[in-house]
Amino acid sequence: MTYLSNDPASFAEDALAGFCELHADTVRRVPGGAVRRTRPGQPKVAVLPGGGSGHYPAFYGIIGPGLADGAVSGNLFTSPSAQDACSVAMAADSGAGVVFGYGNYAGDVMNFGLATEQLRAKGIRAENVVVTDDIASAPPDRVADRRGIAGDFTVFKVMGAAAEEGMDLDEVVRVGRKANDATRTIGTAFAGCTFPGADAPLFTVPDGHMGLGLGIHGEPGLRDVPRPGARELAEDFVARLLAEKPAGARDRVAVLLNGLGSVKHEELFVLWADVSRLLRESGHTLVLPEVGEIVTSLDMAGVSLTVTWLDDELERLWTAPAWTPAFRRGSITTADAGATVEDVAVAGAPRFAEASAASKKLAASVLDGLRAVRTALREAESELGAIDAVAGDGDHGRGMVRGIDAAVAAAEAAWRAGAGAGDVLAAAGDEWAARAGGTSGVLWGAGLRAAGEAIGTQAGTIDARAAVDAFAGRITALGGAQPGDKTLVDALVPFQQRLRTGTWAQAARAAEEAARATAGLVPRKGRARPLAERSVGTPDPGAVSLALVARTVSEHLEEGT
Amino acid sequence: MTYLSNDPASFAEDALAGFCELHADTVRRVPGGAVRRTRPGQPKVAVLPGGGSGHYPAFYGIIGPGLADGAVSGNLFTSPSAQDACSVAMAADSGAGVVFGYGNYAGDVMNFGLATEQLRAKGIRAENVVVTDDIASAPPDRVADRRGIAGDFTVFKVMGAAAEEGMDLDEVVRVGRKANDATRTIGTAFAGCTFPGADAPLFTVPDGHMGLGLGIHGEPGLRDVPRPGARELAEDFVARLLAEKPAGARDRVAVLLNGLGSVKHEELFVLWADVSRLLRESGHTLVLPEVGEIVTSLDMAGVSLTVTWLDDELERLWTAPAWTPAFRRGSITTADAGATVEDVAVAGAPRFAEASAASKKLAASVLDGLRAVRTALREAESELGAIDAVAGDGDHGRGMVRGIDAAVAAAEAAWRAGAGAGDVLAAAGDEWAARAGGTSGVLWGAGLRAAGEAIGTQAGTIDARAAVDAFAGRITALGGAQPGDKTLVDALVPFQQRLRTGTWAQAARAAEEAARATAGLVPRKGRARPLAERSVGTPDPGAVSLALVARTVSEHLEEGT
Repeated sequence: MTYLSNDPASFAEDALAGFCELHADTVRRVPGGAVRRTRPGQPKVAVLPGGGSGHYPAFYGIIGPGLADGAVSGNLFTSPSAQDACSVAMAADSGAGVVFGYGNYAGDVMNFGLATEQLRAKGIRAENVVVTDDIASAPPDRVADRRGIAGDFTVFKVMGAAAEEGMDLDEVVRVGRKANDATRTIGTAFAGCTFPGADAPLFTVPDGHMGLGLGIHGEPGLRDVPRPGARELAEDFVARLLAEKPAGARDRVAVLLNGLGSVKHEELFVLWADVSRLLRESGHTLVLPEVGEIVTSLDMAGVSLTVTWLDDELERLWTAPAWTPAFRRGSITTADAGATVEDVAVAGAPRFAEASAASKKLAASVLDGLRAVRTALREAESELGAIDAVAGDGDHGRGMVRGIDAAVAAAEAAWRAGAGAGDVLAAAGDEWAARAGGTSGVLWGAGLRAAGEAIGTQAGTIDARAAVDAFAGRITALGGAQPGDKTLVDALVPFQQRLRTGTWAQAARAAEEAARATAGLVPRKGRARPLAERSVGTPDPGAVSLALVARTVSEHLEEGT
Repeated sequence: MTYLSNDPASFAEDALAGFCELHADTVRRVPGGAVRRTRPGQPKVAVLPGGGSGHYPAFYGIIGPGLADGAVSGNLFTSPSAQDACSVAMAADSGAGVVFGYGNYAGDVMNFGLATEQLRAKGIRAENVVVTDDIASAPPDRVADRRGIAGDFTVFKVMGAAAEEGMDLDEVVRVGRKANDATRTIGTAFAGCTFPGADAPLFTVPDGHMGLGLGIHGEPGLRDVPRPGARELAEDFVARLLAEKPAGARDRVAVLLNGLGSVKHEELFVLWADVSRLLRESGHTLVLPEVGEIVTSLDMAGVSLTVTWLDDELERLWTAPAWTPAFRRGSITTADAGATVEDVAVAGAPRFAEASAASKKLAASVLDGLRAVRTALREAESELGAIDAVAGDGDHGRGMVRGIDAAVAAAEAAWRAGAGAGDVLAAAGDEWAARAGGTSGVLWGAGLRAAGEAIGTQAGTIDARAAVDAFAGRITALGGAQPGDKTLVDALVPFQQRLRTGTWAQAARAAEEAARATAGLVPRKGRARPLAERSVGTPDPGAVSLALVARTVSEHLEEGT
């Protein structure tokens, strides 16, 4: 379990602060994460790994020459926001563009994707490399659905060395994707980790068993099996990885044997003796293998094995020197390092477009509507959490409340600053996305911003259908979910369709019926869901939230008339 | 707990083998531990940390330029044998002598002390630096009784840098002892570790509490207290260390914040934020602090804070570069590194003095006696374990059986090789010490060797009193225990005295009575005893073993007559 904290709610931030204090000579903290203290002497591509916290040394432990230029760091096991990613990227960019690297999780994909769009709109070149190394998370014919776990490290190491060599953005992305294509990981867990302040682990594994292929956030794996001896585990791991050797791959490999937290060094060395022997016996040459804690999950008891098949280019980049707090290889020249950067605030106060008097008046009604939604979500928080806990991690209600609280605060500030109705809603969306975390946070945030942009800052009334179309269009484009996937889209689409011909109240009732009907659906394949794979019989919490918000807005509109 | 092993009995050896395989380019395995792969270009002092396994990266993880020349590695939480220490020392010595560094535990003190004597007898200069940093293990007026914990690292780092600089043996010892005198550690544990194959932890801490000052093998600390928040723990740790600031110390400090195993990186960073602030607020300047896993205890949940007050010389040595598997600082020149050494067997077959026919005949009787003792100890193993478990770690019976098994095997080999009676017994003693581990192993081994030397290889009969005097003299000289300390000496001294005027049978009965009487004694202060401090009411297992052996030999002698 986690024993040491001050406030469990700020644990991830407190840890990042302590880390940045310890390494203040080489790393500086910025909103959303950390970047190198020194700026490059001439423009170089900024390699920016990121994801939720709780995986140290992933991701901020590998900031330094030859590896990452910065790291985007979310709350525990929760994607950072697009705003976090933009903040870190703007601090790290030296004019040659940025590339985000992250594991394939819905929240990360959306937030980093959104950040990429926002950075490009600001004139900063931005790209993404998504890691999909976990062979237990989807079969070989659906590689793109696989999660990213410890193979993150190899991919980021290769990209970091490429950027240090002076490769341009397209080249760094190319080698990063090549490294990902050549990387396979299999993991297992013996016992779950416990969050700060929690009194029970996030998941459990039956005594004497292990969860083969269990994800680093407790996502479902292959199956629970009796815990084998070290030699049998090594044989199983190596056989599974060799069965997925890429076509045409040669026999030189980078290898990571990774402890998740409570499986200790001596155990890893015992396992390594067999792993290395088996890999050699299969005709492979091991190139600078690493054994240790590389991508952890708090105190989870587990271990994973990663193999990357190397060509000449990947081997050169894998073996290149690097110097970071948690990973040091060879001797790296620092002659190119430019000036040291003192700590500076990155984020400024938002600016709003000049609004009409009518839109400013309308903004007050928008703000009242958001407050009504806040009241409703706060009242429903525990119920939403209970629904989510059946098949998920139970944090949906908390995330929605965190989002709406931040949204209302931002809307109030925007309203006081004289923003029009559309900007008040857009500002609310931005803060929702930044503070709520997770997949639903970015969807709600991006949806509200889109609706706000549709409303604009001049008109004195709202075209509800246009606003809802913008909201729904953004969410379906970002999330990629289809009706029937058991997501909030199952309530959103009926709502949107009913609104085309009916009133808001009728549409809200359609959303409620559709949300209840999600109880009969099976979640879309590949959708990351910890603890249980089946949630038939329980409605989707995201759909329930959407229906609740629709009804609350309906009541708010009726009061207003 | 420990999840991964092949054979729990060979876990420590398997881990060392896996480590040496992983780092075969820089480290080579030798009997008893590991040494650097490269030999120095010219003679330099060999710095050799050592102790029981289970504390990685202590001790073999810090072998490399600027730090250790090798490491002596015992079984889990068990002192290596003197033979292990000699083996590593002979492989590492380049002509300038060796210095062993280890924490202040009875078994380590005896085994390394014995190795030092044996090396000197072979013409190799050898010294010892004993670390006593744990302020919870004895009050300030008994610093020499304190245990060594994470402060080991700072002391060894300073010694490694000194040797790398070219200091001679006396100088390396001087700076090592100076570093120890300037180093203070306070630790705490939240939960105990579990040995490979065991189904219960070595110790437990009540829920919601922590064992303040608990030792890294579960030795008693100060007291169990409710578990505080990170900030309160930082305040308590810093206050306790500052209260022991050495007289005349300046305000520049090396700091280690050490995780014992299951307290993870993020928690350490949260704690570090407060620790570093408090140390700065007290006027101290932090010089290259380290936060991480430095001296672990398998998967124990615990943390310790170490402060070393630096003078100019210690600061120079602390900040000097080093390059090892687990600790890398700066960029170290390797121009001085000499030739790479291929793996070679260090130990050869023992050679025996030419023995008389009478002594060879007597040797068969000695061998039979040892076999009788083996039978008796095997039968008594679980009973001895149960007695030991009342106040100790319950491994006394197992250790005695491991010792006698190895002793009989060695005696048989010596007898087949034509050794005389004394050499058969001496060979048995050497293997007992090498294989049994722990304090009792080295005492029995050294005692039997001394008895063997008294018996010699010419006489056809044994002067029992002379042999027992040699046995007892060696044990009391090595162990330093006095009658009344509740050790095997409480049975040995009455046995020896009764034998002066009586028969072996009478002496054996005196030993049995004395062993039973140890139930009323309180253990000597400072004697490391996990789990419980009081053992009044239970006889000392070492004394019981001695009486059992005495009686068995008595029966063997009667059969022989």
